[in-house]
Amino acid sequence: MTVKAVAASGFTAGARATGGLATLEADAMVLRDALERRYLGWAREVGAASTLYPPLMKVTDLNRIDYFHNFPHLAMLCAGLAEEAAPHYAQSGAGTGEVSSIHLADAQSALPSAACYNIYLDMADTYLDEPRLVTTVATCFRREQHFDGLKRLLGFSMREIVCVGQREAVLAHLNGFKQRLTAYFAEIELPIETKPASDPFFDSSSGRALMGQLFPVKEEFVFDGELAIASVNFHRNFFGERCGIRTASGEPAFSGCVAFGIERWIQALTTHFKAPPIELAERV
Amino acid sequence: MTVKAVAASGFTAGARATGGLATLEADAMVLRDALERRYLGWAREVGAASTLYPPLMKVTDLNRIDYFHNFPHLAMLCAGLAEEAAPHYAQSGAGTGEVSSIHLADAQSALPSAACYNIYLDMADTYLDEPRLVTTVATCFRREQHFDGLKRLLGFSMREIVCVGQREAVLAHLNGFKQRLTAYFAEIELPIETKPASDPFFDSSSGRALMGQLFPVKEEFVFDGELAIASVNFHRNFFGERCGIRTASGEPAFSGCVAFGIERWIQALTTHFKAPPIELAERV
Repeated sequence: MTVKAVAASGFTAGARATGGLATLEADAMVLRDALERRYLGWAREVGAASTLYPPLMKVTDLNRIDYFHNFPHLAMLCAGLAEEAAPHYAQSGAGTGEVSSIHLADAQSALPSAACYNIYLDMADTYLDEPRLVTTVATCFRREQHFDGLKRLLGFSMREIVCVGQREAVLAHLNGFKQRLTAYFAEIELPIETKPASDPFFDSSSGRALMGQLFPVKEEFVFDGELAIASVNFHRNFFGERCGIRTASGEPAFSGCVAFGIERWIQALTTHFKAPPIELAERV
Repeated sequence: MTVKAVAASGFTAGARATGGLATLEADAMVLRDALERRYLGWAREVGAASTLYPPLMKVTDLNRIDYFHNFPHLAMLCAGLAEEAAPHYAQSGAGTGEVSSIHLADAQSALPSAACYNIYLDMADTYLDEPRLVTTVATCFRREQHFDGLKRLLGFSMREIVCVGQREAVLAHLNGFKQRLTAYFAEIELPIETKPASDPFFDSSSGRALMGQLFPVKEEFVFDGELAIASVNFHRNFFGERCGIRTASGEPAFSGCVAFGIERWIQALTTHFKAPPIELAERV
């Protein structure tokens, strides 16, 4: 892999991506840091505690939230070399550029595909006296069929601001962020449409689909007709049920999250304003 | 996994770890952010550009730098579900809590085990007119035999400040940081010893071992007799040779890095000063 080949494969100023993997150079890092300060500012305003969760998830935890049912094709599992294969690699290296699955150990862990799953799993089997607000950032991974610059990556950074508690508190959190984001995009003059979207977690249940008419499951903030840079997501009590999180009344807690795809913000901002990321850092 | 079980398994204030995976809560995050500001301040002082590299490495790239020869047991490979296995998981989930290797696709990628490998690979097949200084942070993974709280993790955060160029520039970089760190630990009154250490990348070559007498391959900054929280590492021209990085004279470039294990700093600081991380944030 030469630097030239990387630079030629689709990039915005200060950032480049190939094969679903991005490199952010100093200029783009300044914008990234500014965006993170913006998200964390919003998180502070709503009283969300900043927490960093494990960078790997357990297969058993993902199973608990139906991950493999819904996204088997997107999963990225992690495994060591099988004990009997390691000496061969020590002697000969991985000559073919890949490690055959017959040389892998069984996988007990997987890479996260969303930042917020760990929040619900970390709260598992607890009672919440009052709504809990948490913000976290994670490198998330999705094994898509194709990748496209910073727009669609195998590994990407997702910042989330999550509310877990009673239904009303969660809906207030999501509605508050819909207003906040709409006002923000108008203020910085970034053209963004909001669009309803679907979420496989809930599409299979007719009872849940009915509830979906009362409040949309997912709304996306879309740049240029196709690039969702943020979303608000109402999970109803799905994670509360699956993880045994209960409100003071003993009912499964509701949850909802606001999610930001950081590389996509960099893509949208540099594309729209046609300015180097370092200048845009002052604008966001 | 209940919250109680996690909290009981070894922790410092605001941080906890189980099975090699750490969770940093709001208090510890304040200290983490303060440490990152400190490292980035040092990076700026020496003119290192902040860059973020892909969160996955290619097996073929790791092979190029002899990774599997030296650390086959530590490697964490990443693979999707095999095409023929995915429908089964979609229907039945991962019932046993692990994914059998017979259901995995071949692995083309692996998790990084050090933050700086991507720097040399990104510079591959280039000529450097002058020394290049880069800082990066990465979540790194090592499949150790056992894990121990924040001291020894499966997944951890490593900040590095790297110099690539002529031998003298690299040695000046490393010597500068040895002095800087020694003075810094004295200033904040954290008792740290420096200890020489070895590195499997170089131990096998007698020619290289001879050069080792002129400058140590690795020196560690050790807290409490056993916890290396930082290290300075002289790679000689190993990465320059393997990655085709050349100086203006056409010779393989030398390289060296200063590395900080962020969770270990949190562990050392909270242990020594017996204070909550949020107070220590002002001290670092």
